[in-house]
Amino acid sequence: MDVKSTPAITEEIDRMVEKLSAIGRTKNNGVTRLLYSPAWLEAQLAVKERMEDMGLSTYFDDVGNLFGRLEGTEKSSRVILTGSHIDTVVDGGKFDGAFGVIASMLAVSHLFQQYGTPRRTIEAVSLCEEEGSRFNLSFWGSGSITGKYRMKDAAELADSKGVPFVQAMNESGFGKGDYAQPERDDISCFLETHIEQGEILEREGKSWAAVSHIVGQRRYTVHLSGESNHAGTTPMNFRKDSLYAASQMIAHVVHAAKNQQNGLVATVGKIEADPNVGNVIAGECQFSLDIRHHEEDVLNKFCEETFREFKEIAEKENVSLQLRQWMDAAPVRMDPQLTRTGMELAGEEGIPFKKMISGAGHDSQVFGVYCPTALMFVPSHKGISHSPKEFTRTEDLEVGVRMLMKILYKLAYC
Amino acid sequence: MDVKSTPAITEEIDRMVEKLSAIGRTKNNGVTRLLYSPAWLEAQLAVKERMEDMGLSTYFDDVGNLFGRLEGTEKSSRVILTGSHIDTVVDGGKFDGAFGVIASMLAVSHLFQQYGTPRRTIEAVSLCEEEGSRFNLSFWGSGSITGKYRMKDAAELADSKGVPFVQAMNESGFGKGDYAQPERDDISCFLETHIEQGEILEREGKSWAAVSHIVGQRRYTVHLSGESNHAGTTPMNFRKDSLYAASQMIAHVVHAAKNQQNGLVATVGKIEADPNVGNVIAGECQFSLDIRHHEEDVLNKFCEETFREFKEIAEKENVSLQLRQWMDAAPVRMDPQLTRTGMELAGEEGIPFKKMISGAGHDSQVFGVYCPTALMFVPSHKGISHSPKEFTRTEDLEVGVRMLMKILYKLAYC
Repeated sequence: MDVKSTPAITEEIDRMVEKLSAIGRTKNNGVTRLLYSPAWLEAQLAVKERMEDMGLSTYFDDVGNLFGRLEGTEKSSRVILTGSHIDTVVDGGKFDGAFGVIASMLAVSHLFQQYGTPRRTIEAVSLCEEEGSRFNLSFWGSGSITGKYRMKDAAELADSKGVPFVQAMNESGFGKGDYAQPERDDISCFLETHIEQGEILEREGKSWAAVSHIVGQRRYTVHLSGESNHAGTTPMNFRKDSLYAASQMIAHVVHAAKNQQNGLVATVGKIEADPNVGNVIAGECQFSLDIRHHEEDVLNKFCEETFREFKEIAEKENVSLQLRQWMDAAPVRMDPQLTRTGMELAGEEGIPFKKMISGAGHDSQVFGVYCPTALMFVPSHKGISHSPKEFTRTEDLEVGVRMLMKILYKLAYC
Repeated sequence: MDVKSTPAITEEIDRMVEKLSAIGRTKNNGVTRLLYSPAWLEAQLAVKERMEDMGLSTYFDDVGNLFGRLEGTEKSSRVILTGSHIDTVVDGGKFDGAFGVIASMLAVSHLFQQYGTPRRTIEAVSLCEEEGSRFNLSFWGSGSITGKYRMKDAAELADSKGVPFVQAMNESGFGKGDYAQPERDDISCFLETHIEQGEILEREGKSWAAVSHIVGQRRYTVHLSGESNHAGTTPMNFRKDSLYAASQMIAHVVHAAKNQQNGLVATVGKIEADPNVGNVIAGECQFSLDIRHHEEDVLNKFCEETFREFKEIAEKENVSLQLRQWMDAAPVRMDPQLTRTGMELAGEEGIPFKKMISGAGHDSQVFGVYCPTALMFVPSHKGISHSPKEFTRTEDLEVGVRMLMKILYKLAYC
């Protein structure tokens, strides 16, 4: 087998990235396609039309996931699903999600053009939602397919303007029972191509990566309560300075994460002090804490040690400490066999590749606990994403499509 | 000499504190009297009326300082000036500034009642402005008397609503040359009574303090510039985390201040990160730094060591560091002879007293470089000030008035 991409594919990649990014384009040259918005619907319909032009038979499910099906000859075969998500963050980039959708359509249609009907059925999918940018519910698309979410999980939600989730869904034509029920039991595996959103591949001069694990994420809000007081008239030993305590905690946890040297990352990106005035000791201080690693044991040990130290600092500084955990996403292992297959094929092709961990969340983590799943990365220039500046070179995008074609060929045609 | 306060004085203190605090009262039961506002003018006119009732001859100067004069028999004598400021912060307390004005009126008028005309002229003063809460110009009242400020220093200023300083001054009737020029060369000394705004006196069970020095204050804005990046996909060793660098600096400087144990205080009360999002490494971070001590050498050494360490942290964390100093107020020594006199008189009277440093700024620091100056404190309950919760017991206020009477008697009558 010698699956090749063609100059035509390269041209199509550029054209489709441009076309899709024009739907929901912002004044900053970014893209905003929030779930069930007019731009979101326009994008799904544009993908549908393109899938049909490519000879795929399309259908929506009742939450708005869009499928382009290439029926296999083995009628009893389960479905090989490949794709990513169509929604974006506010003022996001052209590639996050969208490239995985484009890659799946192109791979399936070009396999069909070159090799005809596969033995096993393949479906390209444009998942309705991953980012959680409009409603506070990430992975709605993949979650609805895999049974992680049901309609009732969205029943109480509203967006920041107060529009109820169900109303927005209905106004887009979904959620009324007019389409297939989203939950599936006929999927054999899921393959997702995505931009890395980090700069490891670019720094190492690699074009492609097979992801072995998606990290677990624990997110916390840390609140410290001390005593506001006059910066001039309060001696140092009378103080209950919440910002001083917070600073010691932040310095500690980031330092400890650096010392791990096992891929663990810890980030404090948000801080707020009150009253936040230069000549008043901060009575209250609150900061975010985001800790990620691909092994549950490592996360457990790190968090335990961190919070023991936080408690000691709080006691020493006479401030009260409240920890609120609001996310606990377990690490997910991608299918080792699919990962290995990908790397073997990349090796045969002479593509500079890497096996790596994903530090960001993806639909693949929802599929990964449901069916064998492969997540594959192409480089992100400078690691920038969720920004209009998101960029990946066309030659790297082409490698992503070609690798997907090769893996799909092996799974569906051999 | 046996200067006594009387039950009548105690009653008058309470009545005058209540009366003055009703002018500019806020819904939180605080007081807002911003320079040249209607409440400010009403308060000055109420003080003027009260001074006249007490037999003092009153006059304004052209910036709105109000004087109540008790002419001495020695016609050539220079003026003993005593008072404090009438303006407040937004939603401030009943005592900050106002009590010093009240104490000066009561002391001068009761000395006159008890001992008649003094040898040397005394003036009680209600200074127009100290806080800098409306226009960014503190000590306008004392600064205008001592020549620190002239009209041109206010020419370009406007308040947060865009009202020019000069317009506000004119609308109150001042700044048009209708009153005496503010700058004076006939003042022999200045005496100010003020609430401590700290809790040292209360904790130590003292009723009164003679202040030996007002601290020098250095205030900075520290800006750190690193690189915003994804919290999941950016390995720890690729990061330029400005909030991590800031945390190390804050932890360092506050720890170093605690270790000084010489009265130095260092405060970081304000912090801002950008983009200030939990799952994004903070590219930019800015924090305030407020350092105070009563000896210039100590300030110099501490600041030098602090900023050397800040530079090392910035280099280590790969962030750029900008230090902007926006206040450099030198320490001011109160007159040692006046301070000693005060303490001797307190000792004779059996008043539990203390000699202490003022960590807050006061009009006395402006007078202190111009003429012999004494600053005296009464306790602040829990150290709370600039708040509707500001409170001092009447018996402590009475000590403040009595001590002022005793010192004035010594200076003006003996």
